[in-house]
Amino acid sequence: MAIHLFTDFGINDFYVGQVKCALLRHAPAAPVIDLLHQAPLYNPLASAHLLFALSEHLAAASVVFAVVDPGVGGSRDAVVVYADGKYFVGPDNGLLSIVAARARETQIYRIRWRPEALSSSFHGRDLFAPVAGWLATNTLPSGALEPLSKLAIEFENTDLGQIIYIDHYGNAIAGIRAQSVAREVGYSCRGVEMVYARTFSDAENGRAFWYENSLGLVELALNRASAAETYGFAIGDAVELSKLG
Amino acid sequence: MAIHLFTDFGINDFYVGQVKCALLRHAPAAPVIDLLHQAPLYNPLASAHLLFALSEHLAAASVVFAVVDPGVGGSRDAVVVYADGKYFVGPDNGLLSIVAARARETQIYRIRWRPEALSSSFHGRDLFAPVAGWLATNTLPSGALEPLSKLAIEFENTDLGQIIYIDHYGNAIAGIRAQSVAREVGYSCRGVEMVYARTFSDAENGRAFWYENSLGLVELALNRASAAETYGFAIGDAVELSKLG
Amino acid sequence: MAIHLFTDFGINDFYVGQVKCALLRHAPAAPVIDLLHQAPLYNPLASAHLLFALSEHLAAASVVFAVVDPGVGGSRDAVVVYADGKYFVGPDNGLLSIVAARARETQIYRIRWRPEALSSSFHGRDLFAPVAGWLATNTLPSGALEPLSKLAIEFENTDLGQIIYIDHYGNAIAGIRAQSVAREVGYSCRGVEMVYARTFSDAENGRAFWYENSLGLVELALNRASAAETYGFAIGDAVELSKLG
Repeated sequence: MAIHLFTDFGINDFYVGQVKCALLRHAPAAPVIDLLHQAPLYNPLASAHLLFALSEHLAAASVVFAVVDPGVGGSRDAVVVYADGKYFVGPDNGLLSIVAARARETQIYRIRWRPEALSSSFHGRDLFAPVAGWLATNTLPSGALEPLSKLAIEFENTDLGQIIYIDHYGNAIAGIRAQSVAREVGYSCRGVEMVYARTFSDAENGRAFWYENSLGLVELALNRASAAETYGFAIGDAVELSKLG
Repeated sequence: MAIHLFTDFGINDFYVGQVKCALLRHAPAAPVIDLLHQAPLYNPLASAHLLFALSEHLAAASVVFAVVDPGVGGSRDAVVVYADGKYFVGPDNGLLSIVAARARETQIYRIRWRPEALSSSFHGRDLFAPVAGWLATNTLPSGALEPLSKLAIEFENTDLGQIIYIDHYGNAIAGIRAQSVAREVGYSCRGVEMVYARTFSDAENGRAFWYENSLGLVELALNRASAAETYGFAIGDAVELSKLG
Repeated sequence: MAIHLFTDFGINDFYVGQVKCALLRHAPAAPVIDLLHQAPLYNPLASAHLLFALSEHLAAASVVFAVVDPGVGGSRDAVVVYADGKYFVGPDNGLLSIVAARARETQIYRIRWRPEALSSSFHGRDLFAPVAGWLATNTLPSGALEPLSKLAIEFENTDLGQIIYIDHYGNAIAGIRAQSVAREVGYSCRGVEMVYARTFSDAENGRAFWYENSLGLVELALNRASAAETYGFAIGDAVELSKLG
């Protein structure tokens, strides 16, 4: 099974590299894919909705190392969520709760195993990476996990009418699944009204629009320009149905 | 065959990770190398010259996934260019035309194959990645490609007297092949005059110079400082022979 | 043996990709891990201390490609340092001197081998990558290395009371090993006084603190905010014992 990394560790620092060293030690033959290391900082809620959308596109049997963990070193638990063939490893701070709530079959486990040396600030390297590696190679030590009846923190399982990600093109992604949305509908964000376009080349130049992005989410965009810079869009901004729709 | 990625997808977002998931599915044993994900944004012309220079340094038999595709979802075609042992997969928007024009042996194909689900904005993941994976493992479905007599868009096959890339050191790369250029020649950009130096440690401190970079291109630089920040160099700026040369 | 990359090449440019092409050619079966490509720019001293801390966490037998090399193309030598089972390949500009000084068993070699084509600005690709690949696969050509009695440049082997790295959370890492430091001690930097906290969730909100980070170094931080932005911390700033400690 491949191991997919979803974190807010950033791509410039040495955190991802250290996680990969730990994975190489515990699962030398498992492919490792960097899904995203720029998940919304300190924001398990936005991250949980983005994680759900991304995990829809993974191979049926996969492991996802999912760590957005501002409470590391505190009292939150470490968990594994099994959801329809995929294993998610991460903190019990809500991050895995949307994936868990939307699966047909979900099982939840507390991670009981602890390494000999556990740093207070980097459970990704010391705790989650070994467990992810073992899950990918089916070599989990017995007793490492124990069943839990539910996650400690569960976010509301509805679409999230907020910007949850801004990409380097300046497109702003909302936590709203587009397939349930009529194309006649409009959206507004920070007072900007946006109508639907099928894709960039269909949009009027210089006019913001929304479209269904490649993750199946509502995305606010400008053709060949940065919507985020032009309108000041930021993660957490409300995205609402617009009267013009 | 290794698969090399050349895109403007950025390294911070989840686009590259999704492409790699698709490659893992279609070519699990092929090595994948990130050549560049910060190709000039919305700029197939500058990207085409940079792609040529980079591809000179690849193994003789390779696959290059080359996607700078502002017209995605519109009417441009999807193509494969075979050039002297290397396969280039990408949009028919000029991006592959410099590589095609400078090869001794070139063959061009339209991609006829379409996936069951083709997003309107991410042909990299849905269309180009499967084709690149199949080419690397010699498993292309029959009928997936059909020969084309020529590319729809062909950029002029001469050196490009513009800045085509700025690296994180602040060095500015021009689309000019340095081997055909006399060392006595000077260049100017935004009014800054630059003479030749063999390398950084030969250059006068605080004085901009040009040298032949490791891709064989003319590069404008300052020793231990950012030429781009100091002089405001940007992609697209004209780079011209200077009277001081 | 895995090959670990530690450079200031940046993650956005094409330098790392070209190094990986060279490694694939010379050591196709060796895993390659990006440890850090944002090492302190033009700063072998800070980089040397960071490299030491990171290399403590690598597998016992590894190869480290370590290149922070502002003098590339000049007169500095190219060397291999063997230190307690690990091979470090890089320039003889002090970068490898802290690792060498702190190992129980150290051997130093000059790299005599030269490629047919050696660019003046990218020895990482042309010289260091082949040597790292050969070391990882035990296929070094005979005569490629010759023993040296010592490195040409040796930094002082004491802790470095400076900021040596700032991560994307805005935490500032000092070149001070925390295990030899009493928890009662305080630190100051740019006039900001910081007391000890075990981890982020133990720290007072809005109050800067220091803690032992996951590399074993003293780190200056704010809970859920950027200490570097808040206080203007930068690489090279002095970190000193504080009277409040």
